[in-house]
Amino acid sequence: MNSIKVGLCGLGTVGSGVVHLLYHHQEKIMHDTGSAIEIKGVLVSDLSKVRAGVPDGIKLTDQREDILGDDSIDLIVEVMGGVEDAYQLIKGALQKGKHVVTANKDLMAVHGAELLAIANENMCDLRYEASVAGGIPIIRSLTDGLASDKIHKVVGILNGTTNYILTKMVDEGRSFEDVLKEAQELGFAEADPTSDVDGLDAARKVVLLATLAFSMPVELEDVSVKGIRNLSSRDIDYAEQLGYTLKLVGIAARDQERVELSVQPTFIANNHPLASVKNEYNAVYVYGDAVGETMFFGPGAGQLPTATAVVSDVMDVVKNIRLGVTGQSSFLPQYEKRLKPSDEVVSKYYVRLEAKDQTGTFLEITNVFAQNEVSFDKILQLPLVSNEKAEIVMVTHRASEHQLERILNGLEQLDVVEGVSSYYRIEGEGA
Amino acid sequence: MNSIKVGLCGLGTVGSGVVHLLYHHQEKIMHDTGSAIEIKGVLVSDLSKVRAGVPDGIKLTDQREDILGDDSIDLIVEVMGGVEDAYQLIKGALQKGKHVVTANKDLMAVHGAELLAIANENMCDLRYEASVAGGIPIIRSLTDGLASDKIHKVVGILNGTTNYILTKMVDEGRSFEDVLKEAQELGFAEADPTSDVDGLDAARKVVLLATLAFSMPVELEDVSVKGIRNLSSRDIDYAEQLGYTLKLVGIAARDQERVELSVQPTFIANNHPLASVKNEYNAVYVYGDAVGETMFFGPGAGQLPTATAVVSDVMDVVKNIRLGVTGQSSFLPQYEKRLKPSDEVVSKYYVRLEAKDQTGTFLEITNVFAQNEVSFDKILQLPLVSNEKAEIVMVTHRASEHQLERILNGLEQLDVVEGVSSYYRIEGEGA
Repeated sequence: MNSIKVGLCGLGTVGSGVVHLLYHHQEKIMHDTGSAIEIKGVLVSDLSKVRAGVPDGIKLTDQREDILGDDSIDLIVEVMGGVEDAYQLIKGALQKGKHVVTANKDLMAVHGAELLAIANENMCDLRYEASVAGGIPIIRSLTDGLASDKIHKVVGILNGTTNYILTKMVDEGRSFEDVLKEAQELGFAEADPTSDVDGLDAARKVVLLATLAFSMPVELEDVSVKGIRNLSSRDIDYAEQLGYTLKLVGIAARDQERVELSVQPTFIANNHPLASVKNEYNAVYVYGDAVGETMFFGPGAGQLPTATAVVSDVMDVVKNIRLGVTGQSSFLPQYEKRLKPSDEVVSKYYVRLEAKDQTGTFLEITNVFAQNEVSFDKILQLPLVSNEKAEIVMVTHRASEHQLERILNGLEQLDVVEGVSSYYRIEGEGA
Repeated sequence: MNSIKVGLCGLGTVGSGVVHLLYHHQEKIMHDTGSAIEIKGVLVSDLSKVRAGVPDGIKLTDQREDILGDDSIDLIVEVMGGVEDAYQLIKGALQKGKHVVTANKDLMAVHGAELLAIANENMCDLRYEASVAGGIPIIRSLTDGLASDKIHKVVGILNGTTNYILTKMVDEGRSFEDVLKEAQELGFAEADPTSDVDGLDAARKVVLLATLAFSMPVELEDVSVKGIRNLSSRDIDYAEQLGYTLKLVGIAARDQERVELSVQPTFIANNHPLASVKNEYNAVYVYGDAVGETMFFGPGAGQLPTATAVVSDVMDVVKNIRLGVTGQSSFLPQYEKRLKPSDEVVSKYYVRLEAKDQTGTFLEITNVFAQNEVSFDKILQLPLVSNEKAEIVMVTHRASEHQLERILNGLEQLDVVEGVSSYYRIEGEGA
């Protein structure tokens, strides 16, 4: 039996997981691919580090050329992370006719379109299942399983760290800072949690999902992003009272061939399956014209889940190499990018404000909504203990982003309104 | 551009859906496969029936030979249902070198292994994604997305009719007969609901899932099957009190290369994602050694969801035809069948019984469990209004099927026990 030779670039958490799977599931992998897979060399940044669990006979190097220049290596697995170095490495590999499997969402969100084009020119496969939602096979579900359908919306819980934090805030009433600290101690959150809690990590995955689902080359700057740093426990409590759960979701939606992209804390209706996705789990909810609604749920990160996605990609590429059909992927976008203007991005909204607790307040507030032609689904008014103020919470029917903006401005200008405290988009229930 | 020619066998609900998708998503299908797909002929049972929505120029025939004997037809789509006729048709098609896509679970559960072998001998593809869980791409998730992993357990809500009935019984407190009648009026349930409500339909899907997940040729007779006809509203109420939801689930589990297969009404822990799968939706929960837990959720039936799966399969086969790589599937089982003896099939159980409301009853009952080395997780005892009787409900820790049987016999022999009313397996929480 021939063997396919792999150059593994990166031997951190995921890299070690890839080594583990290639050895421990060897028999199954050989049966399914008809080929042995051999790790020919491993690129590491620090040769002096002790490597537990790396089988004997695997050559470690800190020189990129040892991997790129080795003509016997058919396939590069890039799990070292970072953007610039990984970009140069993958570009170089593809140009030399080596296939690439990567778990690098940061890279693919920025340079994906270019690298996929280079892969196609060189008849190479470039696969990146692990870069979105870890162990969930969502990329191939979009490109294969739902290939015959037209997807019009994808809503995802795409970041495990923030979902863990929000779950603890909602279920245990704890504060953001408190849970973040715990998540850092447990290793779920980075020492610098910016990319997670500010929504950037999820935004990268929105770019990758939208590009595939709509076959359109969208970019990171097209995603409107809001993180979870400034959530108030009052909103979490009101969400519960009103039948919603607060989640950080990424949304990619298409309507008349124009797309909208966002990441934002969102009120999800409790009877929607996304509302019950807890802790560090991820889920991607897909709306198709023909299939209706499907959801893909699983671990969004972690050593072995991510390695499973990487090695499944490797197995696909190995099959393609054996069959002589590499470089035939339908991952390249077919349509030009067309974004939806924000006055056409519509949603239901939750709005919370503080107002003077006096006659006429309610009339003035509802007037602002009526002037902008937005009606209510639900209203709660509660007296606040101090200062003769009241807190008013409203759930609107569908409104555009422009309408909402005009309403928020109008409310702020009222004498009876002390200030708009917060507003959130609502997903997962009928219009 | 070359076109691939399809013979469509069956023009009922799903067949019309296939025609609809092939025409309405034509542009996307051509882009992704690089090929036009043309319906060359359609086999129907009754030529005199009026066919709305069938484009002009498509030749209808009631003669199988018009399809099988047409050498220009590359691929047969079998959506006519039934076992014997479909078996002959598919076998004949494969022997003539025609590829086959089918939605026929009844057929595949019985003749799948044989037909897959014939397909391989003739270098043909035989695909059947639509036969399990309709629009959910679960088969290719097992064969591709999770290919690098070893699956040890699959738990699925695999029948939409029974899940609809159970959802209404649980959420609305209605009776089985009442909801079944409504489901029949809505078209969710057949006039003869036997195959759904007695668990046979789900059992066929368990066979197909287990064969793929464990690469082992299991058969319908290996599945222990119990339906939902005799559920008591008392058990539904106790489930709610104890934090469970009653669902009909299929289970396929592997342990030391031996498998257990069952379909039965089961108490699912409410914090498990399967508990919130409602109405006619299906879901398949997959436990992998490396990936951990993933779930695939979506419509288990319906015209367009099922047609989506069929046409996605057709697109896969068309790509394989164009690339010259048909007949390379890894769908054929690799291992011999090994079943787990029932004294090693272990689970937590819920047991409900009626007993005399007198001193010592409790001691005698708990003694029976202790003698069989099974301990309790929870116990409820409630007086019954009539006759000085009490109802006792127990949730056990893990016990084998043999242990449970001995316990049930032991309980029935006690003077203080009037009878065991019901018992159910529990899934979805720690041991």
